[in-house]
Amino acid sequence: MNKAVVVLSGGMDSATALYQAKADGNELYAISFDYGQRHKKELDYAKKLAEVAGVKEHHIVNLTSITELISNSSLTNKEIDVPEGHYAAENMKLTVVPNRNMIMYAVALGYAVNVKASSMYVGVHAGDHAIYPDCRPEFIEALDVIAKIANEGFIKKDFQVKAPFVHISKTNIAKLGSQLGVPYELTWSCYKGRDKHCGKCGTCVERKEAFQLAGVVDPTQYDL
Amino acid sequence: MNKAVVVLSGGMDSATALYQAKADGNELYAISFDYGQRHKKELDYAKKLAEVAGVKEHHIVNLTSITELISNSSLTNKEIDVPEGHYAAENMKLTVVPNRNMIMYAVALGYAVNVKASSMYVGVHAGDHAIYPDCRPEFIEALDVIAKIANEGFIKKDFQVKAPFVHISKTNIAKLGSQLGVPYELTWSCYKGRDKHCGKCGTCVERKEAFQLAGVVDPTQYDL
Repeated sequence: MNKAVVVLSGGMDSATALYQAKADGNELYAISFDYGQRHKKELDYAKKLAEVAGVKEHHIVNLTSITELISNSSLTNKEIDVPEGHYAAENMKLTVVPNRNMIMYAVALGYAVNVKASSMYVGVHAGDHAIYPDCRPEFIEALDVIAKIANEGFIKKDFQVKAPFVHISKTNIAKLGSQLGVPYELTWSCYKGRDKHCGKCGTCVERKEAFQLAGVVDPTQYDL
Repeated sequence: MNKAVVVLSGGMDSATALYQAKADGNELYAISFDYGQRHKKELDYAKKLAEVAGVKEHHIVNLTSITELISNSSLTNKEIDVPEGHYAAENMKLTVVPNRNMIMYAVALGYAVNVKASSMYVGVHAGDHAIYPDCRPEFIEALDVIAKIANEGFIKKDFQVKAPFVHISKTNIAKLGSQLGVPYELTWSCYKGRDKHCGKCGTCVERKEAFQLAGVVDPTQYDL
């Protein structure tokens, strides 16, 4: 049985990637990151998701020591407000943590090499591209290339970085996930990290919209 | 004045990269990593080096939480002996930490984006290639490519990953460093991390040889 490492944030997209990796017949290894994000409760959701999905190993890696180095983002710097409104808006650039995905994926790749995984699944999707340069298809391609160069002789020869949603919208992720049986009530999106989803921040707006447009029941409790 | 981030291990190569970055007219930012290596004292050397070289900011980033994920290496796993003998030998593969350089460089790149650096200097050299796939020229090239893709719109347009020694030997690094005034007595190589350099492990053998062949006085106290 092939092994897959899944980068699991606890949000909708990576939860769906987890179930996609499972549907693809892999033994599952999940990895999550505490990078000092305000919405740390997504990690509790990642933990539950991993259990429910039958993940063999799940690690939560503490990367908070890098926070001070990349503190210009509202996601890690408490002095900057999390912007509200639609995700595509210019002010959402405040949610960029420099090189965040590359840092997390580099650690996940080390883990993948160590467990002799055949693939690494990440949940980036088409809607991320406008804001986050490290969610674009060209980034995923470059990552696949460098993963094999950096680990030649150690990584499985047929290893692949898989971003199954890189060309599809969050709406289509919700549709697909609904077919795959993803327990979306065990996912967390809101950047504010309160008791309930705020319903107003960029990622909440995106979440609500995806369920609505997909015609999938939204199990989320919004604070409205 | 351009800013350069230098990845500083506390060894000869990165110390020379630091002085090269200085000679190139940069304002210096240094970053070092505690990744659970046994030879942690190299970090004390990195700190002294940064002070003496007039570095503006020096960070030591704690990455020990990733150690358990990448514990197959004798550098981080205390149950595996550090191999002795010449560096090029097959058993030196035991010193490979999967994806280590990519992990450290990804964090360093995030830092470089944050301080608006024009370059990142790394000390990899030609002698590393045989053992460490993530020290080869093709890795450095791939890193330069992905750094710009992952951070487009945030990273300086003329940003460059610089590995000035990627095609030269450690002997030539010692020659160059001697001209640049690198205080090699403030560098640490030995993987065993005792009071003095052991003189026997791969990196000690390489260090001694480099000074000898370069005709540069070796300021190291070996435990012989």
